[in-house]
Amino acid sequence: MAGRAPPGQAGAVPHRAVRVVGPVLLADSPTPELQTLSRAQYDLVEYALAGAGFALLAYTLYSWTSRGEVGVRYRPAVLAGLCIGAVATVSYLLLFLRWSSGYDLTDVGYVPDDQARLALSPRYVDWSVTVPLLTAELLAVCALAGARVRALRASAMTAAFLMILTGHLGAQIVDGGRDTTALVGWGLVSCVFYAYLYVALIGAVRSSMPAMGREAAVSLRNATIVLLAGFGVYPLVYAIPVFVDVTASWLTTIQLAYSAADVVAKVGFGVLVHKVAKLRTAEDVVEGVDTHPEAVWVGNVEHSRAVLPPVRSGEERATPPVVGAGDPRRTGEHR
Amino acid sequence: MAGRAPPGQAGAVPHRAVRVVGPVLLADSPTPELQTLSRAQYDLVEYALAGAGFALLAYTLYSWTSRGEVGVRYRPAVLAGLCIGAVATVSYLLLFLRWSSGYDLTDVGYVPDDQARLALSPRYVDWSVTVPLLTAELLAVCALAGARVRALRASAMTAAFLMILTGHLGAQIVDGGRDTTALVGWGLVSCVFYAYLYVALIGAVRSSMPAMGREAAVSLRNATIVLLAGFGVYPLVYAIPVFVDVTASWLTTIQLAYSAADVVAKVGFGVLVHKVAKLRTAEDVVEGVDTHPEAVWVGNVEHSRAVLPPVRSGEERATPPVVGAGDPRRTGEHR
Amino acid sequence: MAGRAPPGQAGAVPHRAVRVVGPVLLADSPTPELQTLSRAQYDLVEYALAGAGFALLAYTLYSWTSRGEVGVRYRPAVLAGLCIGAVATVSYLLLFLRWSSGYDLTDVGYVPDDQARLALSPRYVDWSVTVPLLTAELLAVCALAGARVRALRASAMTAAFLMILTGHLGAQIVDGGRDTTALVGWGLVSCVFYAYLYVALIGAVRSSMPAMGREAAVSLRNATIVLLAGFGVYPLVYAIPVFVDVTASWLTTIQLAYSAADVVAKVGFGVLVHKVAKLRTAEDVVEGVDTHPEAVWVGNVEHSRAVLPPVRSGEERATPPVVGAGDPRRTGEHR
Amino acid sequence: MAGRAPPGQAGAVPHRAVRVVGPVLLADSPTPELQTLSRAQYDLVEYALAGAGFALLAYTLYSWTSRGEVGVRYRPAVLAGLCIGAVATVSYLLLFLRWSSGYDLTDVGYVPDDQARLALSPRYVDWSVTVPLLTAELLAVCALAGARVRALRASAMTAAFLMILTGHLGAQIVDGGRDTTALVGWGLVSCVFYAYLYVALIGAVRSSMPAMGREAAVSLRNATIVLLAGFGVYPLVYAIPVFVDVTASWLTTIQLAYSAADVVAKVGFGVLVHKVAKLRTAEDVVEGVDTHPEAVWVGNVEHSRAVLPPVRSGEERATPPVVGAGDPRRTGEHR
Amino acid sequence: MAGRAPPGQAGAVPHRAVRVVGPVLLADSPTPELQTLSRAQYDLVEYALAGAGFALLAYTLYSWTSRGEVGVRYRPAVLAGLCIGAVATVSYLLLFLRWSSGYDLTDVGYVPDDQARLALSPRYVDWSVTVPLLTAELLAVCALAGARVRALRASAMTAAFLMILTGHLGAQIVDGGRDTTALVGWGLVSCVFYAYLYVALIGAVRSSMPAMGREAAVSLRNATIVLLAGFGVYPLVYAIPVFVDVTASWLTTIQLAYSAADVVAKVGFGVLVHKVAKLRTAEDVVEGVDTHPEAVWVGNVEHSRAVLPPVRSGEERATPPVVGAGDPRRTGEHR
Repeated sequence: MAGRAPPGQAGAVPHRAVRVVGPVLLADSPTPELQTLSRAQYDLVEYALAGAGFALLAYTLYSWTSRGEVGVRYRPAVLAGLCIGAVATVSYLLLFLRWSSGYDLTDVGYVPDDQARLALSPRYVDWSVTVPLLTAELLAVCALAGARVRALRASAMTAAFLMILTGHLGAQIVDGGRDTTALVGWGLVSCVFYAYLYVALIGAVRSSMPAMGREAAVSLRNATIVLLAGFGVYPLVYAIPVFVDVTASWLTTIQLAYSAADVVAKVGFGVLVHKVAKLRTAEDVVEGVDTHPEAVWVGNVEHSRAVLPPVRSGEERATPPVVGAGDPRRTGEHR
Repeated sequence: MAGRAPPGQAGAVPHRAVRVVGPVLLADSPTPELQTLSRAQYDLVEYALAGAGFALLAYTLYSWTSRGEVGVRYRPAVLAGLCIGAVATVSYLLLFLRWSSGYDLTDVGYVPDDQARLALSPRYVDWSVTVPLLTAELLAVCALAGARVRALRASAMTAAFLMILTGHLGAQIVDGGRDTTALVGWGLVSCVFYAYLYVALIGAVRSSMPAMGREAAVSLRNATIVLLAGFGVYPLVYAIPVFVDVTASWLTTIQLAYSAADVVAKVGFGVLVHKVAKLRTAEDVVEGVDTHPEAVWVGNVEHSRAVLPPVRSGEERATPPVVGAGDPRRTGEHR
Repeated sequence: MAGRAPPGQAGAVPHRAVRVVGPVLLADSPTPELQTLSRAQYDLVEYALAGAGFALLAYTLYSWTSRGEVGVRYRPAVLAGLCIGAVATVSYLLLFLRWSSGYDLTDVGYVPDDQARLALSPRYVDWSVTVPLLTAELLAVCALAGARVRALRASAMTAAFLMILTGHLGAQIVDGGRDTTALVGWGLVSCVFYAYLYVALIGAVRSSMPAMGREAAVSLRNATIVLLAGFGVYPLVYAIPVFVDVTASWLTTIQLAYSAADVVAKVGFGVLVHKVAKLRTAEDVVEGVDTHPEAVWVGNVEHSRAVLPPVRSGEERATPPVVGAGDPRRTGEHR
Repeated sequence: MAGRAPPGQAGAVPHRAVRVVGPVLLADSPTPELQTLSRAQYDLVEYALAGAGFALLAYTLYSWTSRGEVGVRYRPAVLAGLCIGAVATVSYLLLFLRWSSGYDLTDVGYVPDDQARLALSPRYVDWSVTVPLLTAELLAVCALAGARVRALRASAMTAAFLMILTGHLGAQIVDGGRDTTALVGWGLVSCVFYAYLYVALIGAVRSSMPAMGREAAVSLRNATIVLLAGFGVYPLVYAIPVFVDVTASWLTTIQLAYSAADVVAKVGFGVLVHKVAKLRTAEDVVEGVDTHPEAVWVGNVEHSRAVLPPVRSGEERATPPVVGAGDPRRTGEHR
Repeated sequence: MAGRAPPGQAGAVPHRAVRVVGPVLLADSPTPELQTLSRAQYDLVEYALAGAGFALLAYTLYSWTSRGEVGVRYRPAVLAGLCIGAVATVSYLLLFLRWSSGYDLTDVGYVPDDQARLALSPRYVDWSVTVPLLTAELLAVCALAGARVRALRASAMTAAFLMILTGHLGAQIVDGGRDTTALVGWGLVSCVFYAYLYVALIGAVRSSMPAMGREAAVSLRNATIVLLAGFGVYPLVYAIPVFVDVTASWLTTIQLAYSAADVVAKVGFGVLVHKVAKLRTAEDVVEGVDTHPEAVWVGNVEHSRAVLPPVRSGEERATPPVVGAGDPRRTGEHR
């Protein structure tokens, strides 16, 4: 029946087509997920979703297998990148599956079914976890330390989470995203957290750059630019339904823009942060702050040589004082 | 036969609506799983389930890849956290799948089908395994040792398991959770184990704090607070059906509260325990109790330097006494 | 149509109900898989299957990530445990899926469909692989060596496999397990292998205990008791259909007992063997038999300190004699 | 409606059969995916897809587990190979699933359904990620360094991505690949990037060969030949629909050729690059440029011996200057 | 309709039953996949497929986690075993799924549906990848080196691939395996490659045995016997349809024999090769050819002690000559 609208209904809603979605009739539903797409539009979105998923999968595997190239001091940055990549890969798998099952091919193109209304929602779940982790990833290669970095990290991760949560409430939860007032209101709340993030992260990066070598500082600056520019795409896309009637072209644009922004802000940013972490590891080895059992090479240039930690001296025993029992006084433990 | 309810039953339950669930007629079933939800409620729960699952996935990967940062003495804590994260991630995958397939979108909202009655039950399976492991995780960074820690760990893990099992019997198994007497009775039994856990764990933590440095002790105290506060959410949610008619709002609240509590008591707690384990590793290295091949950095502050174990001295041979055969006298083995 | 048996047939088979299973009518089929279960029974079994699966998953991950804590001499025990855990986890996943799809909720409870007849069979497949590995796991921490351990291991693994295979023939393959003669006959054959296993394993453990320290010997004895007691559950459950009419309660009991026995004999046993392996590793380090790069801690008590192997002395070259080619005479190889 | 084609259309397209695909009537659609295949053709393609997927899976596991055999300097080559293998394995899983579900067995052979039109598209997604990574893999074992390699890598990866993207637009997106003008136009644009890649990569390899040993240089040259020859298959296959009517034989040929080319250009190329990386690692160890904790053996011939890095000397402390706090002046960090 | 053949057809094809497979009528189709099986036959095959899959999964995990026990010189053997195990595990998963979905339970037993015709084909895909890898696994522990091993490995792997491919053409592709001439013809071609493999591998093993210790040589001989005996099963089973009418018993036998042969030739062979690799690693350490950071224990007998590689001497710097830039002259690279 899809595609053949009863003539009376079509006449009653001249600009926004009445669609039959599953067993439910939705009138006046401008949400982007429920557009009928041409084949080329559908295929382009599938290409973008699968491509972004593949790029994120590759990035996840790279983070996993190269984490030993970074000293333990900066390793939280790589582990954050790994978690970001894995969560986003699973999220794109879900987006891909919903895209595959949410639209049915008919002679007017790909028509949304009742699974389509959740075709975009995995993105918000993903971002709720990954955007706070992205701020932690950036701070892990900055030069702040101790209580100061703990406080900043806590506030930045909280702001990042609330930025996504409030955006999600406006774009998806309240009346299915069709309430323009909620969309604008929650969008503005979201922007407050967004502004805080910009200020906090730029401040942290600025004060950190003098503490590291030039090459690391330049890469850190570039990583920050990539991250914040990537973040800037989301509110632009978010605001589309406020200003224009959402069409199939806009749905296609939304999906392409979000996919590209995710790859840039996660993979591109992550590769730059990984470089900063390696360069700073090399600096620590060269300055004698730390050891690293492998050399550090960046772009086929050696930045530090492999050095093993010192061997504990003055120790002849392989046995603890009391074999098979240990000495509670020595370890300060209670039996 | 499905769908044809005997007229008497429908008339006999005026306040609690008769619902047709799959091919079965359920009269008088206040179980939370079988509420009809609005779209916003359904979407919020999906967001919470997927979000908690993503957070647990990230925590699992973090535990896996950072376990080498902790000395072997405290590593059982990290491995417990890893197992907890993995089991809970799978459990949330199952919750997510049941949420997706257990409710059908109609014009009155999301109506439960006959899969919905098991929409909450994976939580109890998860907790049966993870709550005992959480107590083991906490004890692994305490200062008790030897027989004392073995006895306490055994009793605490048993109490934790029985706490969940008895709660599960009341909330789900006996008459599908609709028998208020069973709900209250088993709930009280569950609370006895709950009280024991509080006393036992707080005692262990209190006696352990003086044996470690201040920063580790504070983090251990915070971890304990987070864990026990998280545990406190479950009985509150459990008791809802005792006092009020369960509505769709309550089902939504239950799912959101459980998801948030799981993230706090597993991920938040786990990150704090990880910090205690790293700080205590550094203390052991500094005091010469143990070696660790990597430096220990917490919050970009170095707590101990990398030290290799001593090399076995006075050993010139790479060969065992009898090549290709070994010397049974030397190894005390029988051929 | 399920639930409405033709009256004539029901009268002809008074004690054993006629059931319509898929498109096939099965008369007189007492196999446990084909009982109609109450909701509480169904839910309990699902809880047991999922719970055992989660415990086995956690054990698998623990074996994987803690294998380095055990010296290479005893590592086969941990690797056997890892393989056992992984196979059993997959087996429980299959059991869980078949339980979910094999029974349909109707107004008389959960009625088996034509998938249900294979609801128990994955257990036998699992055991065919894991029970031989369990005997290998035990022998890997015993003190037998060389040809003696190779012969014993081969005979014990073979007996374990045949014990399961013959039991499977009687319980499932011959006439779908409904032939009592086959059940008893194959059961007795299975018991012969079972008896051999007991004798062989107890002998190996008894002769091994004097060769190790007291704490390790006690844990080895406990592990053996747990394993053999766990094995004892299976023939008891196996014999049920010989003596009683199988009812839904018995099916529930079977599934709960098997699940509990699997957790005890795999996870409980494995944790004890892991402890033996760590204690013996520490003994080897203390006695100078082997080195281990990490300290060995058991229950927060140190049993040996970390010791690196000796460094090869008298070697100045990083190059083989002929760069890029090697020296066939030195390595004894042919070009 | 499916299955009842309007007679007029069928008559109007005498040479290219009208096919009913799902509920949609496609007239004049020469896209290769929508051919009806004989059983032997269908089986051959299934064999090729599954076989290539298995080969890629094996290569992925090999890259993962052998990455430590290569020094950290050349490890980016192995990690690129790992990511390429993993992405392509997932892509072939998708191709296999679409092949299984996209064609239905009837008495005229395997007839495409409405999933079949996307049966080839995962290849383009795969290539969009893997072909840029293949250029990075090759450059990671070349001898260019610093800014020069960064610039070349960026331009080559960009050209590789655009080569695939523009090819994809012509072959699949614009009018579903049925617009011959678009096919030729975008194909020519794609060829420009293709030509650039050839020139850039051959130049990099040529200038690198003198910097390494003969055996490594020969393998590098062979790897380049394999890669560029493999790349040459794609435009040949791409151009098929321009010159001939696509038949079932051509679809079979396309799938077999792409599968074989993927195995050659990913697995064959990757194994050769792995060999170059090992040989160059050995050269670095022999020349004292780097250390490597394992010997390097290639084809059972030793190329370098294992050498540990030097141990940091003149360091007596396991503690940082201020225990539990670190010294910000020493590490140059801000609190 | 399955099971009720029209009487006329059944009469016209007296020896080979007409079967209705999906929507297609297949007359005169003796392919083994399309037999109707009794329940016991079906269950036995399911047991064999799942059991072989579990054994292969365990072997895969064992290869993965024990690969460090083997020196880097012989590690290609373990990595080949790992890839073989993983590919075969996935193949058995596919075989299991096709067995589950390809046959429907009716009152005459398990009747094949239209998925059943591909129930055996995953085996050929598996073998196309794993049999070449098995020859590489064997050669990796032989004593041939350099150009000689490269040439032999290339020819043996090619012959192994062609042996499977030509067998597959005859048994499955040409006329669905029903053309006896093709079956015999391709079978004979396949046998030529088979004979070459025997000669080549036995020659390599014979010339290698003197170069290693007695225990390793005996295990190498045993591994070769197991592999070649396992290979011998396949042509025997392959030839069945040439000589006899294929019946359900034969299908059962085929599946059981292939499953057992796969376990023997992959797992049994792999365990023996692993032992050879460990013994030869120990020999290399004892003879000073290589170092290994762990002791080598086989069957609880120590064959070599742990030895670290020498530490690079005469190196005081942790920094490369030019910090942050490297020295192109030193590394021979171009900027």
